Amino acid sequence: MNYRMISRVLGMIVLALAALLLLPLVAGLCFRENVWNFIWTIGICAALGGLLMLPRPRSRGLVARDGFVIVGLGWMLISVLGALPFVFSGSIPRFYDALFETASGLSTTGATVVTDVDAMPRGDLFWRLFTHWIGGMGVLVFLMAVLPMSGEHSMHIMRAEVPGPSVGKLVPRVRKTAMTLYLIYIALTLVETVFLLFGGMSFYDALLHACATAGTGGFSTNPASIGGFDSLYIELVTGVFMLLFGVNFNLYYLLLIGRWQDAAKNEELHWFFGIVAGSVLLLAAGISKMYGGFAIALRHAFFNTATIISTTGFGTVDFTDWPEYCKWILIMLMFCGGCAGSTGGGIKLSRLMILGKAAIAELKQMVRPRSVVRVQIDGKRVEAGTVRAAFLFLTVYMFLLILFAALVSLDGFDVATCFTASLSCLSNIGPGMTKLIGPAGSFAMFSPRSKLLLTLAMLLGRLEIYPILVLLIPRTWKR
Amino acid sequence: MNYRMISRVLGMIVLALAALLLLPLVAGLCFRENVWNFIWTIGICAALGGLLMLPRPRSRGLVARDGFVIVGLGWMLISVLGALPFVFSGSIPRFYDALFETASGLSTTGATVVTDVDAMPRGDLFWRLFTHWIGGMGVLVFLMAVLPMSGEHSMHIMRAEVPGPSVGKLVPRVRKTAMTLYLIYIALTLVETVFLLFGGMSFYDALLHACATAGTGGFSTNPASIGGFDSLYIELVTGVFMLLFGVNFNLYYLLLIGRWQDAAKNEELHWFFGIVAGSVLLLAAGISKMYGGFAIALRHAFFNTATIISTTGFGTVDFTDWPEYCKWILIMLMFCGGCAGSTGGGIKLSRLMILGKAAIAELKQMVRPRSVVRVQIDGKRVEAGTVRAAFLFLTVYMFLLILFAALVSLDGFDVATCFTASLSCLSNIGPGMTKLIGPAGSFAMFSPRSKLLLTLAMLLGRLEIYPILVLLIPRTWKR
Repeated sequence: MNYRMISRVLGMIVLALAALLLLPLVAGLCFRENVWNFIWTIGICAALGGLLMLPRPRSRGLVARDGFVIVGLGWMLISVLGALPFVFSGSIPRFYDALFETASGLSTTGATVVTDVDAMPRGDLFWRLFTHWIGGMGVLVFLMAVLPMSGEHSMHIMRAEVPGPSVGKLVPRVRKTAMTLYLIYIALTLVETVFLLFGGMSFYDALLHACATAGTGGFSTNPASIGGFDSLYIELVTGVFMLLFGVNFNLYYLLLIGRWQDAAKNEELHWFFGIVAGSVLLLAAGISKMYGGFAIALRHAFFNTATIISTTGFGTVDFTDWPEYCKWILIMLMFCGGCAGSTGGGIKLSRLMILGKAAIAELKQMVRPRSVVRVQIDGKRVEAGTVRAAFLFLTVYMFLLILFAALVSLDGFDVATCFTASLSCLSNIGPGMTKLIGPAGSFAMFSPRSKLLLTLAMLLGRLEIYPILVLLIPRTWKR
Repeated sequence: MNYRMISRVLGMIVLALAALLLLPLVAGLCFRENVWNFIWTIGICAALGGLLMLPRPRSRGLVARDGFVIVGLGWMLISVLGALPFVFSGSIPRFYDALFETASGLSTTGATVVTDVDAMPRGDLFWRLFTHWIGGMGVLVFLMAVLPMSGEHSMHIMRAEVPGPSVGKLVPRVRKTAMTLYLIYIALTLVETVFLLFGGMSFYDALLHACATAGTGGFSTNPASIGGFDSLYIELVTGVFMLLFGVNFNLYYLLLIGRWQDAAKNEELHWFFGIVAGSVLLLAAGISKMYGGFAIALRHAFFNTATIISTTGFGTVDFTDWPEYCKWILIMLMFCGGCAGSTGGGIKLSRLMILGKAAIAELKQMVRPRSVVRVQIDGKRVEAGTVRAAFLFLTVYMFLLILFAALVSLDGFDVATCFTASLSCLSNIGPGMTKLIGPAGSFAMFSPRSKLLLTLAMLLGRLEIYPILVLLIPRTWKR
């Protein structure tokens, strides 16, 4: 363990947070609000960041576990520090509530404990939604994009922060990869902002909803979420962009460098849009009676399929009123999540593809033990290590899902609420599948203990489990 | 594929079923009932069995997929034929109901569609409970015990029918292994019968409840299940024997040949009793207020822990009234199930141990990529193939769990009912975790489609998935 280097990178993360906090401060000033909560937090971050950067590392080398530790501790640190503005301003007075809300923002979950959004200062609300944007692409990827770090070692950090079963470099240099990812991210966010402005949103609302979509987060400035704007145009724009941010960013890079055909051939993409199309049709068929017509049903089915599979969690209607089988389609989409290398959460489509193909391959092998069956995606063989990692991920994911549901049940809520609260947090969706925690509900009624547990679940989900688990095993800390 | 040999073994299975049907016939005669339903069924089985045995196999060789196909088709066949007596007598008039009940019996699930047990003829009731005993140890293991089959090849059948991640031969010859298993099984069943007789049960009730315990099934001759006998003694006897039948039968063999120490050192056994003890204490703490005292709470906690972890499903009290976290303890036990090589269902404890140890090993490896971490159970290294098979099993199990829940939800029942109905059938438990399908409920209200789906789920659970799945892939049937 290179403790000094870890401390240094953690310091950089905290300083980056201080810099990012200038944005809500400016927003607060624009609305002539009291911004001392941001000033205090920036001060604390600057002091702590400086302190962490004091030890001069003897070497800049990082190994795999250093990457995990940096990402795990770093995300915990910014969740705690990012919660301070809410506590200082009193908009979310209790620390565990503010921590839940901030972790929900950074992990791009969007589960909320705030029951009255309108009562929040505009600066605080800006910060609440902007955390989605920070967490979506990742604060460490951001650091890598702007700071000179030696390529070999920072790859370990990137692997630990970017979602998906395997992380490839777009270009040989990690820094350029990180920059490319962030440029695509910024561009798409701005394009959506413009589209939303055309729909009649204020610049404040448009920018923040674009940020929340980009991170596939789900917080809104409107108490009734996207449904509150009551506009087909805005629903369509948000729906389409939610899907776009659920797609592997590598594909946008391929488009940028003109390799259209490679992007179009991507197997995960075909599955993604196939599943979306199938779900929209099945859902629309199920709810058409409720909304008096297939056209309106299609509108709601499209938006809610997009919001769940991309793991965003914006709401327009309360899908907990839908027929039971429609709920299960949404639950299955909650497990699934977006594509690898997107800002979406969940198990990830490509991981499920690997699991499905590996299961069929094993079954074939079982039938004819002497034959050799290979797992292939996009015509390329998937390495045995990647397959093993996918199986391991699913196992730990399912174990955590049941464990968190069981622990949260100590609050006395019913089986379905606990199960889907755990699922929603682990998959970074936001709403659950019962009235209490659905699109019209909130997580406010959970006990402080459950809120802390679900905070942990959200971080585990966003970082795909290992960076947090690694912190818990003694072997990590031994010399 | 050795079609002729497969047909021959299927014929033997059907003839064995005909022979086993003589028992309820005799029971019916003792109670002076109309037994034509059994006579007709035996006639049909004899004719079909004879027909299937007609083709003379050119060779007696069987490969792995033949074993799967025999077990998969064989179990489907006896589920269909075993349902006929209920249809012929009219005690369960609709075929899909009778099929559900028979598959529930043979798979040792114990989920029922019969709402009035008292109205059933005693012969039919005998058959209903006796199917648990047949299914517990397996009809093919039975065949192997009584018929001369060449050892090498019948191992494939045994592997496909006996539950658990790895099946070891007790003794070098498969036939002797099968005989030993059945002798232990018969002996334990008789011992329990005697114990139950001492509790004041009639011979009919005692024998059948011993059979239902032995197979870890859960059907009862009493409409209120074990609770209907209102006897602490009977609850204790049944509770203890449920646990005994949830233990790996290899351990009883070790006891028989005097290797006490080896049996006592078994890691899975320690976990099994550790989990039982922990669950009993946690449950008792949770329900002591409900039952006005820790002693009565302990009684109910012990019985229900035993009934769920052994996947039997006998009932004494309605645990769907228990506090939410107690339900989740039971749900976790439903996933877990008994030991490998027992008659219990579920994922199996040893498989979970392999998964847990493999997950920790991978995590350790992730932290220090150059180190080598081995997965060991009972001091012996677990082979990579066994670990892979366990991961695969869990993945397919979870996939089927969600799939069946989603399909059953088309009937319009709530999330928790569909989820725990699917879990209960896949793990061969019996009751689910909501009022409708709990210890006081039944599966009668499900649609014919859902009953067929859950029938499939029960067989998939009992045969540990592959023998049924193998039937579905074209590769199995290609020459």
